[in-house]
Amino acid sequence: MTQSAPLSPTARSTLTRKKDRAAQDRTALYQVLDEAFVCHVGLVLHDSPVVVPTGYGRDGDTLYVHGSTGSGNVRQAAQGVDVCVTVTIVDGIVYARSVNNHSMNYRSAVVHGRAHQVTDPAEKLHGLWVLTRHLSPGSWEHAREPNARELAAVAVLSLDLTEASVKVRSGEPVDEPEDLAHGTAWAGVLPVRTMFGEPESASYVPAGAAVPGHVAGRTLSREPGR
Amino acid sequence: MTQSAPLSPTARSTLTRKKDRAAQDRTALYQVLDEAFVCHVGLVLHDSPVVVPTGYGRDGDTLYVHGSTGSGNVRQAAQGVDVCVTVTIVDGIVYARSVNNHSMNYRSAVVHGRAHQVTDPAEKLHGLWVLTRHLSPGSWEHAREPNARELAAVAVLSLDLTEASVKVRSGEPVDEPEDLAHGTAWAGVLPVRTMFGEPESASYVPAGAAVPGHVAGRTLSREPGR
Repeated sequence: MTQSAPLSPTARSTLTRKKDRAAQDRTALYQVLDEAFVCHVGLVLHDSPVVVPTGYGRDGDTLYVHGSTGSGNVRQAAQGVDVCVTVTIVDGIVYARSVNNHSMNYRSAVVHGRAHQVTDPAEKLHGLWVLTRHLSPGSWEHAREPNARELAAVAVLSLDLTEASVKVRSGEPVDEPEDLAHGTAWAGVLPVRTMFGEPESASYVPAGAAVPGHVAGRTLSREPGR
Repeated sequence: MTQSAPLSPTARSTLTRKKDRAAQDRTALYQVLDEAFVCHVGLVLHDSPVVVPTGYGRDGDTLYVHGSTGSGNVRQAAQGVDVCVTVTIVDGIVYARSVNNHSMNYRSAVVHGRAHQVTDPAEKLHGLWVLTRHLSPGSWEHAREPNARELAAVAVLSLDLTEASVKVRSGEPVDEPEDLAHGTAWAGVLPVRTMFGEPESASYVPAGAAVPGHVAGRTLSREPGR
């Protein structure tokens, strides 16, 4: 079961703009994180901001990301420096009667904190399991588990979801009174949807081999996990 | 016509990992930027990294983003500080015979530079036109153009695409020789696709009004613009 608690915004996670879009609700945070595949990790490297896309997984109020132990960005993030992790889902293009009121429907989560490198072997394996469950549910049970050499080459970082904010824009456009009264332009929403296509077997999979159910029957998660 | 030139990587835009994925080609950069809707802008605010999702548009080798003049992030970015803008498109989930070789097919563009606030009125209007052309092509001609009050409330920032890198992973999984020889797990790619749904007219659009062609006939751009 999900323990739902209000988000705990601090100065940097408190929205200064469009506060009406701040759905300060942990369930909304979980839904965004559980539906998307990629997060954007921001950190400061040699005094410059760097934004790196990467896969992730969530277990309760912990976010796990992984990377190569040889990556400079991963090494920097592992040192416990401040990071900002942002996940965005685009839900639609919002057409208004004025160009200025055009917008996008979206859901985004922003997490601030310090990432920690997971060194305990059991927790590291757990982190990889969480990542795998999120990105390719069923694969941990179906595919070969990581061996010692593979585990040594991967770095797993964890980040607390304590300091987080969620921003949502949904619904129809908001037009100015004069455009509502006198405008004739079309206004509305063009939905943007992410879908899975037909699975494509690798060339080395025997011809005619069935695609397993955890792939063939996979649907996009819109419900939060635990 | 697109003038195609090799990207000019510097130390921070040169990939240190997976160099084979670095498609150092300006056309690839344009394709990623022209297909996605949202970029993630990273900057340093009060010594912490901040990653903000926002819409954008590209004109040649200039990226335009906009935001409210009241936004702290926008004000910071407008001061000419270093920013990092990352755009990521997920193309598929890659299932391998080992958990460790699971991956994602994706295309990502990373741009480093200093954003500049566009103050010249004609260039500001041009930047908004570029943004509108990208996010909702046809809307500039169909909807009411921005008035003076609206123009004053929006900040337009420009960023040179000089220092950029593109990273692409595509194709089937790469498995270990022992898994190729002895593994029986399924391996392949589950494609991830972004599609438009059916347009939804706003409640204040007269019933029966036709959805204009620039919305009803819109397809996802996979070809670079100029």
